[in-house]
Amino acid sequence: MTEWKNLDTLDSYKKLQGLKNAVDLKQEMSGENGADRVRQYSVKMGAGMNYNYAAKQVNADVLQTLEELASEAQLVEKYKELYEGAVINTGEKRLVLHQLTRGQLGADVVADGVNKREFYVEQQNRIADFANKVHNGEIVNGAGEKFTTVVQIGIGGSDLGPRAMYLALENWAKANNTFKMNAEFISNVDPDDASAVLNKVDVAHSIFVLVSKSGTTLETLTNESFVKDALAKAGLDASKHMIAVTSETSPLAKSDDYLAAFYMDDYIGGRYSSTSAVGGAVLSLAFGADVFARFLNGAAEADKLSTNAKLTENAAMLDALIGVYERNVLGYESTAVLPYSQGLSRFPAHLQQLDMESNGKSVNRFGDFVDYKTGPVIFGEPGTNGQHSFYQLLHQGTDIIPLQFVGFKNNQIGNDVVIQDSTSQQKLCANVVAQIVAFACGKEDENNNKKFEGGRPSSIIVGDKLTPESLGALLAHFENKVMFQGFVWNVNSFDQEGVQLGKVLAKRVLAHDTEGALKEYSDIFNI
Amino acid sequence: MTEWKNLDTLDSYKKLQGLKNAVDLKQEMSGENGADRVRQYSVKMGAGMNYNYAAKQVNADVLQTLEELASEAQLVEKYKELYEGAVINTGEKRLVLHQLTRGQLGADVVADGVNKREFYVEQQNRIADFANKVHNGEIVNGAGEKFTTVVQIGIGGSDLGPRAMYLALENWAKANNTFKMNAEFISNVDPDDASAVLNKVDVAHSIFVLVSKSGTTLETLTNESFVKDALAKAGLDASKHMIAVTSETSPLAKSDDYLAAFYMDDYIGGRYSSTSAVGGAVLSLAFGADVFARFLNGAAEADKLSTNAKLTENAAMLDALIGVYERNVLGYESTAVLPYSQGLSRFPAHLQQLDMESNGKSVNRFGDFVDYKTGPVIFGEPGTNGQHSFYQLLHQGTDIIPLQFVGFKNNQIGNDVVIQDSTSQQKLCANVVAQIVAFACGKEDENNNKKFEGGRPSSIIVGDKLTPESLGALLAHFENKVMFQGFVWNVNSFDQEGVQLGKVLAKRVLAHDTEGALKEYSDIFNI
Repeated sequence: MTEWKNLDTLDSYKKLQGLKNAVDLKQEMSGENGADRVRQYSVKMGAGMNYNYAAKQVNADVLQTLEELASEAQLVEKYKELYEGAVINTGEKRLVLHQLTRGQLGADVVADGVNKREFYVEQQNRIADFANKVHNGEIVNGAGEKFTTVVQIGIGGSDLGPRAMYLALENWAKANNTFKMNAEFISNVDPDDASAVLNKVDVAHSIFVLVSKSGTTLETLTNESFVKDALAKAGLDASKHMIAVTSETSPLAKSDDYLAAFYMDDYIGGRYSSTSAVGGAVLSLAFGADVFARFLNGAAEADKLSTNAKLTENAAMLDALIGVYERNVLGYESTAVLPYSQGLSRFPAHLQQLDMESNGKSVNRFGDFVDYKTGPVIFGEPGTNGQHSFYQLLHQGTDIIPLQFVGFKNNQIGNDVVIQDSTSQQKLCANVVAQIVAFACGKEDENNNKKFEGGRPSSIIVGDKLTPESLGALLAHFENKVMFQGFVWNVNSFDQEGVQLGKVLAKRVLAHDTEGALKEYSDIFNI
Repeated sequence: MTEWKNLDTLDSYKKLQGLKNAVDLKQEMSGENGADRVRQYSVKMGAGMNYNYAAKQVNADVLQTLEELASEAQLVEKYKELYEGAVINTGEKRLVLHQLTRGQLGADVVADGVNKREFYVEQQNRIADFANKVHNGEIVNGAGEKFTTVVQIGIGGSDLGPRAMYLALENWAKANNTFKMNAEFISNVDPDDASAVLNKVDVAHSIFVLVSKSGTTLETLTNESFVKDALAKAGLDASKHMIAVTSETSPLAKSDDYLAAFYMDDYIGGRYSSTSAVGGAVLSLAFGADVFARFLNGAAEADKLSTNAKLTENAAMLDALIGVYERNVLGYESTAVLPYSQGLSRFPAHLQQLDMESNGKSVNRFGDFVDYKTGPVIFGEPGTNGQHSFYQLLHQGTDIIPLQFVGFKNNQIGNDVVIQDSTSQQKLCANVVAQIVAFACGKEDENNNKKFEGGRPSSIIVGDKLTPESLGALLAHFENKVMFQGFVWNVNSFDQEGVQLGKVLAKRVLAHDTEGALKEYSDIFNI
């Protein structure tokens, strides 16, 4: 059995605190030493991707101490307990099984009398069968016509992850002739969200995927009504246009209101659900079940690499521990995620949920407040767009913000132009490379306004191309990174009690059960 | 004349430092006192909007000291100098005249022999005339057919602001029968961005707006080539499908390659250019020139209110100073922008550029490094989506992050459903109201995991509906807030030297003029 201890009780952490000014990044990244670091500080992530941490503020001493920390905090042992079915989500008393949706890393996990790997695979197979029938015209609308659009109705993890994955593969699928159906997403309770999507799509040829684990998510049920209204107004039978993704115990399961229902369970957290039926239904419908299977394979590869106890061979664990060093020793409060790939335009928004909702906690697994910082703020936009926006602050602002670059050697569509002797793809890659060195090494100038102090750390994830496999590996890398950081901080990364109070108060507002400030604000909005 | 002094040399700032723990927000927002604050701590922003700061960590003492700071730092005097044509952008030795695009607040500004207000109005009129001709079929494509789509090609300020404004008004315009043309945007040098947009639009009926002040922006010129290739492949004459928005001295001005060219000048910074021809062309084409004029009127209203020396009657200045108090006295490092309006989905991305590129600086106007924090990290997503994502950290994380809510009493499209006795719009408003109180007041619980410490400050901007006028006021509010903060921090908010080094190094990579780490990274990407 493993022991769950607060970070500040670990000897290796105390040692790490002594290494605060161990690395002069500007110096380390200069000359041949810098070149050596770029060659050596690279680790495989799966699906042909590499995590390169040459421009992080680490050296052999720091890495050695981080490895001791990984060992003392029993990180891979805890990961093993997780994927073999321990009750890692202690607050909600649940197993944490999202890795089982894409592979079997250890012993069989049987819960509620069911082999959970078999259960997830069964759902994938049911989805694949359903998607194939939609694509080949066996499942059609009331007029016997093929569906051309899939619309996901969900919020949070039922929206951000699947949407980011859809956008990441949309152009790839079109370029590779595996694009089956356009996907749209309705999430916000703002009625303009559903209205705008419904005004845009051809509802008669749309299939709607209602996603809610509990079957009680207010936003999602409200938006379901919007959709049902629109279908009714078009003279269509809603039950012929909707499927549900939910838990088997939810009110949405086994209902005649839906063409079909596909299941996840309580052991898949919303923000970890892209590889479950939550992502599976919409992605299989949009791109085909084969593409979704390839995405899962990429994730499984990354999961496997995350079992390695050797820190410098385990990209997710290394990324996690460098993040802890930056947060708890160097004192950095936020992290920017900067993918140099238009396909990853909403990937930062997904990571924002994944990371901030998992580790934005102040109490440990035993309910005691911790005395150290936990999850940072995560934000980001694609490069090169960000360079023309907030990079000014990243380069010359008064805070240091660690950067996570992502780049690919090739674009997805394959169309390009040569301007000034280089392609757009070359310009894109040249820019991300240039940024890493600019941030790390800076530049002297007599005019302080044109001076770059450097010493600003970054890492880069490099892939050949953004494909289903590399996207899967990228997703799993960050899921595992966040998990390892939660282990280090000794928090429960799998609940979200911080979202409850707002829900309770909103219900009181709607019931006009308010007083004081809450009543005044309600009056302002005429609620 | 005003004096430009570092913040930490001001007496009022020293006094402010003594007020670090002056306000117990949880206490202040409880009971009738909280209700009083909500009623009293509200100030007009223009266009029917109000800035409510009841849930900020301020009281009469803090506000009094902030007013002294505003006076000592001569904020409204500096604003007056700015809009009357002083060289406020000292680094680039330029005037700062974006307010003149929407009104004349003071004396005439004549520069380069031209009355600048007249110049900007002339461009607006030329754009209005052009847009009207496109809409009524006087300006048509080569086949004599009407244009149906406008595609903006630009990056940074030529993309984020106009795109956010377009999305903010798209549904409003459709609901109000002023929607003229669909707009799309191409920004990234990633070739997949241009390819995807070009695959999506009907190029034969598209008019492209090339936006680059200098006419030399690499991303934009590269994407222009993409578009010209696509037009040529479709057998179309590019010069009949493109217009330029640029400075009169740029290579794009007065070129036969474009149907028309509309001008801004060096006195309009990219991130402040939404109300200039940069936003004017695309928004007038999409929604009609009248809508753009209404948007300018809203901005002008907010500008006028920002001239008021009384702090509690000047929403932008108050917002700015509370932000300084939070950043430099309370020590908060980032700010979340949370619009409860789907139309404002990309407004946070625009503010991210506006704020971080303006005030993410470490040197003052005289080129000396400052000893205090300047611009914070800005991030955000629309509510209620964010509630199901990163709000966990905002409520229960180990850092306090000030929040800027925005909400409207009514939605834009007007379509709604009643579920559980309330409309979606009521649910949306109930949620934002609930969040303010949840963050401020928290909740006790025996289980620490379910405990909310509260004391987390927010403000809310409340409007009746997101219209051209209210959007204009919202935009100008934040432009003026950022300007006032720049004055307080004594930085130049109008240059962006921090973007230069990356450009220089990227050019070296493309020229294969690299060594050390830069060469190694280039090799990884096969550049």
